[in-house]
Amino acid sequence: MEIHHIGVATQDADSLVRLYTDLLDGDVAHEESFDGMDIVFIDFGSGYFELLEPHSDGVLSEYLSEQGPGIHHVAFQAADIDAAIAHAETLGVNPIDETPRDGAWGHKVAFLHPGSLGGVLVEFVQH
Amino acid sequence: MEIHHIGVATQDADSLVRLYTDLLDGDVAHEESFDGMDIVFIDFGSGYFELLEPHSDGVLSEYLSEQGPGIHHVAFQAADIDAAIAHAETLGVNPIDETPRDGAWGHKVAFLHPGSLGGVLVEFVQH
Repeated sequence: MEIHHIGVATQDADSLVRLYTDLLDGDVAHEESFDGMDIVFIDFGSGYFELLEPHSDGVLSEYLSEQGPGIHHVAFQAADIDAAIAHAETLGVNPIDETPRDGAWGHKVAFLHPGSLGGVLVEFVQH
Repeated sequence: MEIHHIGVATQDADSLVRLYTDLLDGDVAHEESFDGMDIVFIDFGSGYFELLEPHSDGVLSEYLSEQGPGIHHVAFQAADIDAAIAHAETLGVNPIDETPRDGAWGHKVAFLHPGSLGGVLVEFVQH
């Protein structure tokens, strides 16, 4: 599977968008307010950053309070997200989302538990 | 710049290699013992995971003790790493490595301080 994006939790997406697009020569590909967050995808050609800024209380604002800003997850593009989840379960990996749900940018998404993945929060994304 | 790899700190690279290559359909591209670490690059077509397992005391073993295992950094491929570092400095980003140093897999590398990058530890890589 190809790496689709790296999710970055932030309390100031606007500043990071300006910095990352200049420093790393990326282009804003998509912006959206979704599920209590401002979300910005920056395209680097081989994959995206997904900046996530919460504007209401929830899982992400709790994460920021506890862990601080930074890399939050990594997403892989699945051709068949249901099959990818089923395969994960056969390997003993616990899905957070047992069935795909609607994500940003019109994608179907499912997260896997980092506890069974060496501390890495992995997301499957299907276009 | 294209995303080159995502660095993952671990105390058990062998288990994670087996899990990630199966779960995420990647291939081991390179293995090396370098700078007190066992390092494994897994190729996902659009970029790599770089698994980092320390086998001596140092920055990475301290990181694992304090933060636990998981995503450690993200690396971007620079055509001209000296120019990339100089550009970062003009943007107010502090380099950890003011001049490139030898990294794994024969690359030239330089890290930038996460404190000036929204908590994200960014590495430049030049082949």
